[in-house]
Amino acid sequence: MCAKKVTIREVAKRAGVSIATVSQILNGKAMKFDPLTVQKVQAARDELGYEADHLARQMVGKQSKTIGILVPEITNSFFSTLVKGIEEELLHSGYISMLCNGGFNGAKEEKALLELAQRGVDGFIIASPSISDEVLKEILQIKKRPVIVLDQKTTVERSDEVATDDFNGGLLAAQYLKKMGHTKVAVVVPDLATVNIMHRLQGFLVEFPQALQLKTELSKNGGQAVVAELLDQKIEAVFALSDELAFGIYLGMRQNDKSVPDDLSVIGYDDVEMCRYVTPALTTVAQPIYELGKQAADLMVKRLADPTSPYVKRILPVELAIRGSVKVKI
Amino acid sequence: MCAKKVTIREVAKRAGVSIATVSQILNGKAMKFDPLTVQKVQAARDELGYEADHLARQMVGKQSKTIGILVPEITNSFFSTLVKGIEEELLHSGYISMLCNGGFNGAKEEKALLELAQRGVDGFIIASPSISDEVLKEILQIKKRPVIVLDQKTTVERSDEVATDDFNGGLLAAQYLKKMGHTKVAVVVPDLATVNIMHRLQGFLVEFPQALQLKTELSKNGGQAVVAELLDQKIEAVFALSDELAFGIYLGMRQNDKSVPDDLSVIGYDDVEMCRYVTPALTTVAQPIYELGKQAADLMVKRLADPTSPYVKRILPVELAIRGSVKVKI
Repeated sequence: MCAKKVTIREVAKRAGVSIATVSQILNGKAMKFDPLTVQKVQAARDELGYEADHLARQMVGKQSKTIGILVPEITNSFFSTLVKGIEEELLHSGYISMLCNGGFNGAKEEKALLELAQRGVDGFIIASPSISDEVLKEILQIKKRPVIVLDQKTTVERSDEVATDDFNGGLLAAQYLKKMGHTKVAVVVPDLATVNIMHRLQGFLVEFPQALQLKTELSKNGGQAVVAELLDQKIEAVFALSDELAFGIYLGMRQNDKSVPDDLSVIGYDDVEMCRYVTPALTTVAQPIYELGKQAADLMVKRLADPTSPYVKRILPVELAIRGSVKVKI
Repeated sequence: MCAKKVTIREVAKRAGVSIATVSQILNGKAMKFDPLTVQKVQAARDELGYEADHLARQMVGKQSKTIGILVPEITNSFFSTLVKGIEEELLHSGYISMLCNGGFNGAKEEKALLELAQRGVDGFIIASPSISDEVLKEILQIKKRPVIVLDQKTTVERSDEVATDDFNGGLLAAQYLKKMGHTKVAVVVPDLATVNIMHRLQGFLVEFPQALQLKTELSKNGGQAVVAELLDQKIEAVFALSDELAFGIYLGMRQNDKSVPDDLSVIGYDDVEMCRYVTPALTTVAQPIYELGKQAADLMVKRLADPTSPYVKRILPVELAIRGSVKVKI
């Protein structure tokens, strides 16, 4: 954005016509005008090196009023709730969501972002752990559209940000387990842990630096897969860095004829709706997921309305939702 | 579609230029051509009454390669899984999904459909119980875009269809409860029951014509709300016409210090992923939800590739997934 951009005003002045005329002629409405006028405008554009891409962004009429959204797994309640918050706030402001499901697959996400970019979305909201920094930069910076990267590492140097207080969330979980008397604890970490998830881990390790760390896939299956190890190691309480992992641990415990919380206390992260419906109801760190989506959409809409305003960072609070999955150790 | 349409070939012949030239000039590329050629093409178009809308559909280049999707509630696992199936199949074919969440709110859905239509989506896949026939017809027939209506009443007279065998699903649930010895049964019916959900009910009533029918909101809260009545009426077994309702019944039972299946047998419908993670795991009628989404997307892509091919109806089978929520009555 260093080179000074030619403005539509300069093109209009050179061609001796109004700005509105330039806008219409360069936006597919040439048929409405005298062919000579069309020629003059075209010549002025070429002489000044006026860029169509820049034009497109200046013209309100050329906004597609669509925002591309990339999530890794829409069937994970965290992401479906997030998308709901984004979608409702966008629709309220006259925008439509274009949704892509990345499937934790970098190549698919790259394709999806390219498809979104080709459709001229006005901006991107991206919540995905698998896409690389390089791809993000390559795809997004070419298109020069605003990006909000959610729930993951911040890869784009200049963008608005909204996040939840992950470090404090991890700390809250640890303090609660400590208060309930647990000492032999483990933490279940997703394979593709984003920076925000690592912050949760860091918060937790403040209280339990020696905690057993088990890596697994970020899914219910991933949670189920670590149960054998938790039992082998005689772990008393486990912190799952996402509720999905916790639900998998519940199933694994039942399959081993073990009980939560009698044989293992479990604390999750996210507070998806199902936490209240599993047995026992899951104690978890509650993120305002729907609000996170709404705020991301709100930042995007404000950015598009005022592209030069200072970048904003919003941090939403988290809190502990105490239910029935952690027992007091006597 | 009765009046004979003027073709692009006729416009080209009248203007004395190639079809490609007409296509480009009428699609915003007029700047590339001699202004006199542009004038000739424009004149031929006006004299013949050639319609831009028709043109747009003929020109592959004018396809937006986007499909509008309307679901009532993306955080309901049925719909998030459905959307995943649609989205993945569409992306595979080079299409992007534009998603709207209707929230069981007819007015919001109407707005969402209008927003989608204004963005020139190539087609619509609609899974929503609350939008009225009139709105659907009004919005969609004006735009003359293909529509696939899923999981609800078929409102559009001429369209492809994909559905699951709902009548048989209801029958399977009833036969299983009968086989397990239950006679005092209830069925929980959503307020805004779509035609497909009514088919489930009809299948169930073949075996239990005297079943108690309880109406409630299609949500976990709705399921929770009917528990008091189920207990008052001393119901032995309940058929919830969606798993969401069943999860709510689980919570309501726990809040009343009652047990599933000891105090009440529960059978659900859909087989969303969480069925295996609640306690006891939920016996349910399994629909191939992801496959339903994929098939809908596949029909849409085929329809757009060949708009005049005969309409197709596909019915996908359902089956009973027997888990732990129905007891044998001794």
